[in-house]
Amino acid sequence: MSGEFAFIQSLRALATHPAARNLEDDCAVLEVGSETLILTHDMMMEGTHYLAGADMADVAWKLVACNLSDLAAKGAEPLGVLLGHMLGEDDEAFASGLAEALWHCNVPLLGGDTVGGTGTHSHGLTAIGRATHSPVPSRSGTQIGDALYITGQLGAAMIGYEALRDGLDADHIAYTRPLPRLGEGQALAPHVTAMMDISDGLLLDAFRMAEASDVSIAIDSASVPIDAPENRRMDALTWGDDYELLFTLPAGIEPSVPVTRIGQVEPRGFAPLFLDGEPLINAEGLGYSHN
Amino acid sequence: MSGEFAFIQSLRALATHPAARNLEDDCAVLEVGSETLILTHDMMMEGTHYLAGADMADVAWKLVACNLSDLAAKGAEPLGVLLGHMLGEDDEAFASGLAEALWHCNVPLLGGDTVGGTGTHSHGLTAIGRATHSPVPSRSGTQIGDALYITGQLGAAMIGYEALRDGLDADHIAYTRPLPRLGEGQALAPHVTAMMDISDGLLLDAFRMAEASDVSIAIDSASVPIDAPENRRMDALTWGDDYELLFTLPAGIEPSVPVTRIGQVEPRGFAPLFLDGEPLINAEGLGYSHN
Repeated sequence: MSGEFAFIQSLRALATHPAARNLEDDCAVLEVGSETLILTHDMMMEGTHYLAGADMADVAWKLVACNLSDLAAKGAEPLGVLLGHMLGEDDEAFASGLAEALWHCNVPLLGGDTVGGTGTHSHGLTAIGRATHSPVPSRSGTQIGDALYITGQLGAAMIGYEALRDGLDADHIAYTRPLPRLGEGQALAPHVTAMMDISDGLLLDAFRMAEASDVSIAIDSASVPIDAPENRRMDALTWGDDYELLFTLPAGIEPSVPVTRIGQVEPRGFAPLFLDGEPLINAEGLGYSHN
Repeated sequence: MSGEFAFIQSLRALATHPAARNLEDDCAVLEVGSETLILTHDMMMEGTHYLAGADMADVAWKLVACNLSDLAAKGAEPLGVLLGHMLGEDDEAFASGLAEALWHCNVPLLGGDTVGGTGTHSHGLTAIGRATHSPVPSRSGTQIGDALYITGQLGAAMIGYEALRDGLDADHIAYTRPLPRLGEGQALAPHVTAMMDISDGLLLDAFRMAEASDVSIAIDSASVPIDAPENRRMDALTWGDDYELLFTLPAGIEPSVPVTRIGQVEPRGFAPLFLDGEPLINAEGLGYSHN
């Protein structure tokens, strides 16, 4: 996939504006007059981001959720979304799922475009929000001595995905209809030293936070709340799609919403990430990677 | 194409936010604090919006230009763009064309996302700008008695397209590298009663302006400046891709930039549009339509 890598490198070089913090993995933060805007654009593609034959209402919901989750990690209040949609057979379902997600999150559709097309279908969404707190949280602000927290539980999306894939009669709503942590993000933004969503898996995203902040992060795997069988704990820690928030607070600051402490931030050591004391040197295999 | 039509109707019903003025054909106008933001998302698809085998640097340029042209019609100053890109064989060319267009227009890439994928390729871009004048021009403000103007000349994009299609050794830069009228849009915004770009063809877009403003628009075809052979005049008036601005000024107001008067606004009569006195009742055949 060197071609893809080269392209993304080209775009990163292009994205020299300070607002383009990190192409693909983060939001843009843009000062406009007295406001700070948060912008993100995420795509979902058949076969990669959803199963072929999936209910397009669920796909549309998730497209909204994954973009709003990026805003949540910035403590942003969503202002609206713009849709780039490739027309297909299940457009009515897609439109209804989009409506449900936007209604649920109280976010307006501001506009967009549609095209016809054959082959693999993909759908893009731009979400725009306003920062509720400045400075806007990023993944790079973690300080040595901070405590590491996550919202919610991990693993339910994985179990839901497997149920859908295998045709089991089990609850899959955590996978098909995730809820972005918008309220938690806004409540936490004034207090955190760093925050990001863990859509790509806890371990990979914690690894990225440690790298961006030039620290080591130590996670106690047993402390991570999971909503999956105990023998799937490690899978839950590396599976994406949970859309929970990962964040750090200075020692002595108590979180203002119900969350779980799962580790701490240490001086940069042998590896960016330590799981139960074991160093994890390489990001590979820690979660869902775009390349 | 009733499925597509139903989908677009569904989205229009969804886009109840006042910022969603007109899904697909117009920008969203969003008040944020003391600022007024302009947002648009346009897509380009292989086979529909560009020839298969086209230079992807040109495709990227045009994707930027068509979105910035929407901002130009609102008199907006661009703040940045976000890209939704389907990876392909010519990504390096695409990235270079994107860089050239953004550099030329002095607009930063704020972020975006990429996906792999087979079949028809499509690319989306969200452009965000700030209004330089309030109220923001729309297509619906035309008043009876106004004069109708366009910037630039029509037809060069059509001639360029035909040269490319037929492999002729002729200039095709008007088709491959259009320039959004950002400066003209900002200069005109404080004075116009209505403004829009004519990316879908002069006659179709004038028809839409008349419909949106509930007036009749009378165009004198001979007064339209064209950059094409005289025997192609009617083709130039219905061909899209020129990215010029169509606008109306109250009687007695002189335009502040070089433009051409091509008609006037009259009380709503038998048809929305009159060309050399002939009524044009139906939009069909007047230009490039999305459906």
